Amino acid sequence: MLKKIYLMTPGPTPVPDEVRLAEAQPIIHHRTKEFTEIFNQVSEDIKIVFKTKNPVLIFASSGTGAMEAAVVNTLSPGDKVLAITGGKFGERWRDICKAFGLNTLTIDPEWGDRADPKDVERMLNEHPDIKAVFAVLSETSTGTLGPIKELGEIIKDRDNTIFVVDAISGLGACNIEVDEWGVDICVTGSQKGLMMPPGLAFVSISDKAMKFVETSKLPKYYWDFKAMLKSKAKGQTAYTPAVSLIVGLKSALDLIKQEGMDNILARHHLLAEATREAVKTIGLELFSKYPADSVTAIKAPQGIDGETLKKQMDTKYGVKVAGGQAHLKGKIIRIAHLGYMGPFDTITAIAALEMALNDLGYPVELGKGVKKALEIIYKGWK
Amino acid sequence: MLKKIYLMTPGPTPVPDEVRLAEAQPIIHHRTKEFTEIFNQVSEDIKIVFKTKNPVLIFASSGTGAMEAAVVNTLSPGDKVLAITGGKFGERWRDICKAFGLNTLTIDPEWGDRADPKDVERMLNEHPDIKAVFAVLSETSTGTLGPIKELGEIIKDRDNTIFVVDAISGLGACNIEVDEWGVDICVTGSQKGLMMPPGLAFVSISDKAMKFVETSKLPKYYWDFKAMLKSKAKGQTAYTPAVSLIVGLKSALDLIKQEGMDNILARHHLLAEATREAVKTIGLELFSKYPADSVTAIKAPQGIDGETLKKQMDTKYGVKVAGGQAHLKGKIIRIAHLGYMGPFDTITAIAALEMALNDLGYPVELGKGVKKALEIIYKGWK
Repeated sequence: MLKKIYLMTPGPTPVPDEVRLAEAQPIIHHRTKEFTEIFNQVSEDIKIVFKTKNPVLIFASSGTGAMEAAVVNTLSPGDKVLAITGGKFGERWRDICKAFGLNTLTIDPEWGDRADPKDVERMLNEHPDIKAVFAVLSETSTGTLGPIKELGEIIKDRDNTIFVVDAISGLGACNIEVDEWGVDICVTGSQKGLMMPPGLAFVSISDKAMKFVETSKLPKYYWDFKAMLKSKAKGQTAYTPAVSLIVGLKSALDLIKQEGMDNILARHHLLAEATREAVKTIGLELFSKYPADSVTAIKAPQGIDGETLKKQMDTKYGVKVAGGQAHLKGKIIRIAHLGYMGPFDTITAIAALEMALNDLGYPVELGKGVKKALEIIYKGWK
Repeated sequence: MLKKIYLMTPGPTPVPDEVRLAEAQPIIHHRTKEFTEIFNQVSEDIKIVFKTKNPVLIFASSGTGAMEAAVVNTLSPGDKVLAITGGKFGERWRDICKAFGLNTLTIDPEWGDRADPKDVERMLNEHPDIKAVFAVLSETSTGTLGPIKELGEIIKDRDNTIFVVDAISGLGACNIEVDEWGVDICVTGSQKGLMMPPGLAFVSISDKAMKFVETSKLPKYYWDFKAMLKSKAKGQTAYTPAVSLIVGLKSALDLIKQEGMDNILARHHLLAEATREAVKTIGLELFSKYPADSVTAIKAPQGIDGETLKKQMDTKYGVKVAGGQAHLKGKIIRIAHLGYMGPFDTITAIAALEMALNDLGYPVELGKGVKKALEIIYKGWK
């Protein structure tokens, strides 16, 4: 059977032709007026996605680079911080903080669960010297939505604490209102909701965060916010930008402006809801207690290995989903709804899941989940 | 809602990335060894699709150009010919023959029906001076499969009559065995089963047809088979070829060889069968008495205008199907399964059809047809 490829992993995600063709244009030099015009435009437009008026820096790096940048630009050796874990990427905050010698406290929800904001408040009250709280908007490894708004309310009036959020797989799929919710630093990568290849990372910086930047003593060079902000004022990056990706970003942001952020968020919610209800209808369970709209983690049913299921969906049907990470390997599969994804992609994912389960000897009534998804999609199609 | 485009018209059809990228390569000059190597390769490989050992000429033109070429290269003014109509493209054979002053007899099945081979045999017995019989493999306007094998049996032993077949929308979707079935001239275009953009046309020529070419007196220059065959022997075309399309053709034929003709035909049959059963399940009727596997013509249900239905599927769901032509305008829609089309495309088409019908006030149980299609697809997926 002809195998078309359906990339439904939570990053990289499909890239629209418009963006691919923009990136295929002849390369331009970055120290030119031509580049500066594009760079200034994308630096403004990206704020729409972050829902912020603060500056957003653009690095040539993966999202993890932006996470490191957030740490090294705001803190000093021995500073006390709080990292909320509960998944591979929450743990990454913890690990980066530790790597830079910070006094790292953690709150560790079970994977699939999220931190209770009250526990964070209690911790902040017990340790008023916590300089930064690190959280995740959409925990990619478990498909869990973090309580960012609630955490922001707790942190925003504390002058000595900043709130730093990894929105790498969340931004553009799960609502985050950076300014309104008091997120001081929000980071993301290009290969998720922004509908781009990997290679760019983004960091928004609040005025409050800038005060921390002024006193930060951790060593930094490539990630130096001050150098980047100084260059940004001249329509440039401090070091060579990923030119073709910046050009592609302009095209991606044009598509985002055209669709509108609210419509984009509603679309992700609809596709996620259709997926969640479809898999429940065929007797499967969601892994997360607080499912995010970016990616749905589904427990492999009794007797079925999640890795085998993932592989079957890929090799036979061309539908590429993610498996479980760390101790969840073999236990879950993860279907993304992230970025350039439409309703028929979701239908395709559910159809492939139903067929793959039957292939593996787990009987599912073909079309049952698809029907459910289609009903929800039809109702919500605007 | 984000609108992805699903091109399900019976030409043009979707073009795989491999082919698009091949066509985007730097243009090469055609009077070079480099071009000749590619041209010789595609001239051989195209025979696999035609199931022929005869030469296949490649013109820069639409399929209609190749139809005209078949007429003007084999016949002389006043020759008696038989055109089997029954649809827009059968009628095109008739119209081309008339335009060149041929004595044009016709057999005219109702649109959606096909000629009875016995009627053709009777006509040939009554008019032994019929020089050529023109038929259509897949009548695109009605989704009808012509009785090509049966007609070939009737014509192949008549030395004074050649059998000319329009396989434009049929080739690569509906089986045709050019040599085995005694098809003397078979024509096709690039934008159908060959998974390419429009712009190339193909003509296979049997030894028997070549005898007609030797005596043909109709005027010709661009379409001159002899000039093209002479150039072909040197790995060239007589006039400037559509270079980027020839380069794309190499890539398309590589994909075809990789999948294998039998697998390709089985895939088209499976998708067509799934579509036919799905639409019947939701209470719709097929238009054709002999449905082809290239495109399925579906009667617009009572009270629903076919053009409105087509438009709804396009504007709301991004699924581009064809409407009816000539007197069938508003009466039918046509969903293609042609070329670079996989099972999930068919699922998408049925889902969009179900939703669009509901939009227009024709109640269809959402997912009913999709479920049927999925069951058939699952059973036939190899």
